[in-house]
Amino acid sequence: MFQSFEVTARPEQGPPRLKALREAMQAEGLDGFLVPRADAHQGEYVAPRDERLAWLTGFTGSAGFCAVLSQVAGVFIDGRYRTQVKAQVADVYTPVAWPETGLGPWLIEQLPDGGTVGFDPWLYSAGQIQALQKALEGSGVVLRVSDNLVDRVWSDQPDPPMGAVKVHPLEFAGEPHAAKRARLAETLKQEGQRSALITLPDSLCWLLNIRGSDIPRNPVAHGFAILHDIGTVDLFMDAAKLIDVGDHLGPDVTVHDPDALGGTVDQLAGPVRVDRDTVPYVLAERLGDRAAFGSDPCAVPKACKNPAEIAGAAAAHLRDGAAVVELLAWLDAQPIGSLKETQVVTRLEQLRRFDNALQGISFETIAGTGPNGAIMHYRVTEETDSTLEDGQLIVLDSGGQYLDGTTDITRTIAIGTPPQEACAAFTRVLQGMIAMSRLRWPQGLAGRDIEAIGRMPLWLAGQDFDHGLGHGVGAYLSVHEGPQRLSRASHVPIKPGMILSNEPGYYREGAFGIRIENLIVAQEAPPLPGGDDHRKMLNWRTLTFAPIDQRLIVTDMLTPAERDWLNSYHAEVAEKIGPRLSSGAKTWLDAAVAPI
Amino acid sequence: MFQSFEVTARPEQGPPRLKALREAMQAEGLDGFLVPRADAHQGEYVAPRDERLAWLTGFTGSAGFCAVLSQVAGVFIDGRYRTQVKAQVADVYTPVAWPETGLGPWLIEQLPDGGTVGFDPWLYSAGQIQALQKALEGSGVVLRVSDNLVDRVWSDQPDPPMGAVKVHPLEFAGEPHAAKRARLAETLKQEGQRSALITLPDSLCWLLNIRGSDIPRNPVAHGFAILHDIGTVDLFMDAAKLIDVGDHLGPDVTVHDPDALGGTVDQLAGPVRVDRDTVPYVLAERLGDRAAFGSDPCAVPKACKNPAEIAGAAAAHLRDGAAVVELLAWLDAQPIGSLKETQVVTRLEQLRRFDNALQGISFETIAGTGPNGAIMHYRVTEETDSTLEDGQLIVLDSGGQYLDGTTDITRTIAIGTPPQEACAAFTRVLQGMIAMSRLRWPQGLAGRDIEAIGRMPLWLAGQDFDHGLGHGVGAYLSVHEGPQRLSRASHVPIKPGMILSNEPGYYREGAFGIRIENLIVAQEAPPLPGGDDHRKMLNWRTLTFAPIDQRLIVTDMLTPAERDWLNSYHAEVAEKIGPRLSSGAKTWLDAAVAPI
Repeated sequence: MFQSFEVTARPEQGPPRLKALREAMQAEGLDGFLVPRADAHQGEYVAPRDERLAWLTGFTGSAGFCAVLSQVAGVFIDGRYRTQVKAQVADVYTPVAWPETGLGPWLIEQLPDGGTVGFDPWLYSAGQIQALQKALEGSGVVLRVSDNLVDRVWSDQPDPPMGAVKVHPLEFAGEPHAAKRARLAETLKQEGQRSALITLPDSLCWLLNIRGSDIPRNPVAHGFAILHDIGTVDLFMDAAKLIDVGDHLGPDVTVHDPDALGGTVDQLAGPVRVDRDTVPYVLAERLGDRAAFGSDPCAVPKACKNPAEIAGAAAAHLRDGAAVVELLAWLDAQPIGSLKETQVVTRLEQLRRFDNALQGISFETIAGTGPNGAIMHYRVTEETDSTLEDGQLIVLDSGGQYLDGTTDITRTIAIGTPPQEACAAFTRVLQGMIAMSRLRWPQGLAGRDIEAIGRMPLWLAGQDFDHGLGHGVGAYLSVHEGPQRLSRASHVPIKPGMILSNEPGYYREGAFGIRIENLIVAQEAPPLPGGDDHRKMLNWRTLTFAPIDQRLIVTDMLTPAERDWLNSYHAEVAEKIGPRLSSGAKTWLDAAVAPI
Repeated sequence: MFQSFEVTARPEQGPPRLKALREAMQAEGLDGFLVPRADAHQGEYVAPRDERLAWLTGFTGSAGFCAVLSQVAGVFIDGRYRTQVKAQVADVYTPVAWPETGLGPWLIEQLPDGGTVGFDPWLYSAGQIQALQKALEGSGVVLRVSDNLVDRVWSDQPDPPMGAVKVHPLEFAGEPHAAKRARLAETLKQEGQRSALITLPDSLCWLLNIRGSDIPRNPVAHGFAILHDIGTVDLFMDAAKLIDVGDHLGPDVTVHDPDALGGTVDQLAGPVRVDRDTVPYVLAERLGDRAAFGSDPCAVPKACKNPAEIAGAAAAHLRDGAAVVELLAWLDAQPIGSLKETQVVTRLEQLRRFDNALQGISFETIAGTGPNGAIMHYRVTEETDSTLEDGQLIVLDSGGQYLDGTTDITRTIAIGTPPQEACAAFTRVLQGMIAMSRLRWPQGLAGRDIEAIGRMPLWLAGQDFDHGLGHGVGAYLSVHEGPQRLSRASHVPIKPGMILSNEPGYYREGAFGIRIENLIVAQEAPPLPGGDDHRKMLNWRTLTFAPIDQRLIVTDMLTPAERDWLNSYHAEVAEKIGPRLSSGAKTWLDAAVAPI
């Protein structure tokens, strides 16, 4: 199923649904009810059943929530969605600028005499509810666990997803699940924990070497798992989803009906490790004193890819890079003014699909030309679809899911002759991207310690961009994967094997956007002659290979070292991608990567 | 009094003193006693009375402590002092590598059957004792507040310092102390605190616009103060020290005898703000539940220099820069092989003193030639004094205290013809220093967020250095001043007016050392054409003016932007410092700053 450009919001459905929800609230004696865009696994993508926020309000953004009170219904959305929300929701809903306005202060203001606000304890993490309770302290507004009242009034709500689970072959996983379970059990033992509750689907899939199809874009299976300190696992997942898995899970993994989870959790001996920020509130409450708050034990081991996963990622990127180069060559061959954004998106997905290895795209492709490029998370619809005009830049951010790896690449392409200031900004973005690519740094540093390297060229010109420099990426898993990030918010040390994106950008509102993104993997840096013998350092290996549009580079701004990097990168693109191309694309590529 | 090169350690005095201390311990029923190098104000420099560690053990380093037990006496020292301690202490003392070995684990190991360890509660902060108590939990080793037993056995212990206090003129302070008291009182009120206990001498001196002479190198006065939320201050300081102050303090500042502090603290209404990491344990204990732990309320206001302080610092740096340039010119005129390190130190202090404004040097000058330069905190003594030989680099790190500002500058100078690898490393250090000097960054970032900028050129060559890139500097106060630092340990946002050092280095053990240091002050960056209108950014203004040795620069390694920075900096050195020089030094300077 190709990416859809349908305008899905139907504001007129909002008012009757809101009325029904308010009646349900009243029946329950509630003054308010919270409707997040979340499922019990805190994923970035949710199944149709969990699209409660969109169903209720019409708002389809990837983040936000609604607080329904008897007289007002606030739709909390961040800066990305200020415009979109106005078009999508009826006027019975009040958009609230979040996080500038916090939910706690808003509830206190709206309920001056206090009140009881219900929430579904599966859809909020323990940490979220604790923070909210703290914000409400002494206000007379109290939270109360409730059935999900949206589910009660949503008569044709879809069922929970039942996507088939498949074995993730050892050839790609690189480590049998028994070995993973054994080494994580060792960690639990060392920390005196009897078990760990795994609630994130990508952790669960990584741990058991399985992949699922419960939600779009991410090959994960919804479920919960308890990992015991002897390495056994209790898996809570509908057995019907596991038909294709055969005896892959073996005798040390016991499959239970999802409904058995609560009772099992009640019986667990403590301490049970749970991640405060992702565990559903209901489970943390049932654990009570037995909860040992800590990080998900799968998080760092999953982030540090093993040699098989890195080799897989590299192979997937060559396949994916060929599709991207075919697209770039095709794009250049179209007359200026003849193409719309949706055509670019569809053509790119088509080119990726020509390779039968594609399992799906890894997120909705961003294709923003001209001013649309300045909208960081732009997703083209039939209504916004714009023609690529002379003098514009188009930002093209896309990725694929392959059995051997997940890709994520952004290229910014010149349409005709863009203005000089866009070229200068493009060159600075490129300089930041090169600086991070070339970096070598002492072991132990986190994203926060090195992110500035990728921003400095923009800073020197009084410019910057309002997103992180990079995020972690999974191995045929989520395209956004923690805990590592190239961001000032990230204090997690970067370790060998961690895959990250390196994606500086620049956005001039109403005019143009720029972003250049490669995936890179951290590795132990080979020693250098004259370097410090005793100092262990890391550097990056680049995984993404596709040309960078040299028509947008102000060559004089580059230092010789930057030019060398670019020429050598482009030589590698030609060498690695060239043989995979159609003859037309190959000719185009040879010209595109000519040394500067 | 000029800097002394005396070897002060006399190991033979250690054993009888240790014996006497152990007898005192026994009389008190103690199994151990802790002797820190600290006073009640947690200063970097201590008065002779507080040199208990040196008196007892012979060890004269600027950091360390001794844990005396009945059978063993551990001298805990960090990596800088591993060699020095061996030469300074008798073999009744056991050097312990700290922080690799913590005091808690060491005490537990040495006292397997438990025991009682005494400490002077004025010399340890509440935070230190709490951390130690935590480390000792369940071990049977307990801490007990005690009189200072070193003081009991040190018959000729000097008296507490009684240095005269002077008014710090408004011309340099830039803000009357009444205004400072009023704005800090406002902060206390906003946080619901009734008062704050000020225990750091530089905070106290800043708050009241006074300067003292109780300890070497830092013009501070020992004392304590209570700042009330109505802006009044109770000052606990011997009135004899305040004779020169006249009516400067005014009616809202009441002077009390230091002995009255404890009783006053007992009577204070809470909450009383104290800094856990610096308040003497005894005072935190007396406050009990009334203590509101938080940062010293003077810390950030003191760090953000006002226009008068910045103008003063700039003026002091020109004066100081002239002395440094005279030294550099003189150094170059001496035949190779004719000079020793101590001669350089003395000559430099002499040149600084030719200007009558010098109040004293701001720390012991570091002058390390050849391998001595690789010892980061080298302090030359008669025993280590080395000749400056052909092919060496000498690291010269020094500073002055002037009424209008405190300086700190490091230059590395070629003696004859140093090896190519030293020049390459020097060039990288310079590139890091230039990169930080040129930086412009969005408001709100801390030292941790930008420090990498000053290290990247070394990192790319597999090299690094093991100290922070920079520290805060006071306004005629401590040369090391918090809370701001250019360091991965610093999460304090850098604000306009903060003065920091920018001092990357490189150290090849047994061979050579390199460090280049300028002081820089953060300021609001002027907007740039084409820059983001809405983005507030900061940049640095350089305060230090003295040439950088171009004989050590591998010119080809510099980018055009780096070369431009250096040439423009050198032009400013010539313009600002040239007119202040002797004619010989001026001729030398003109050649030294010729554009490259």
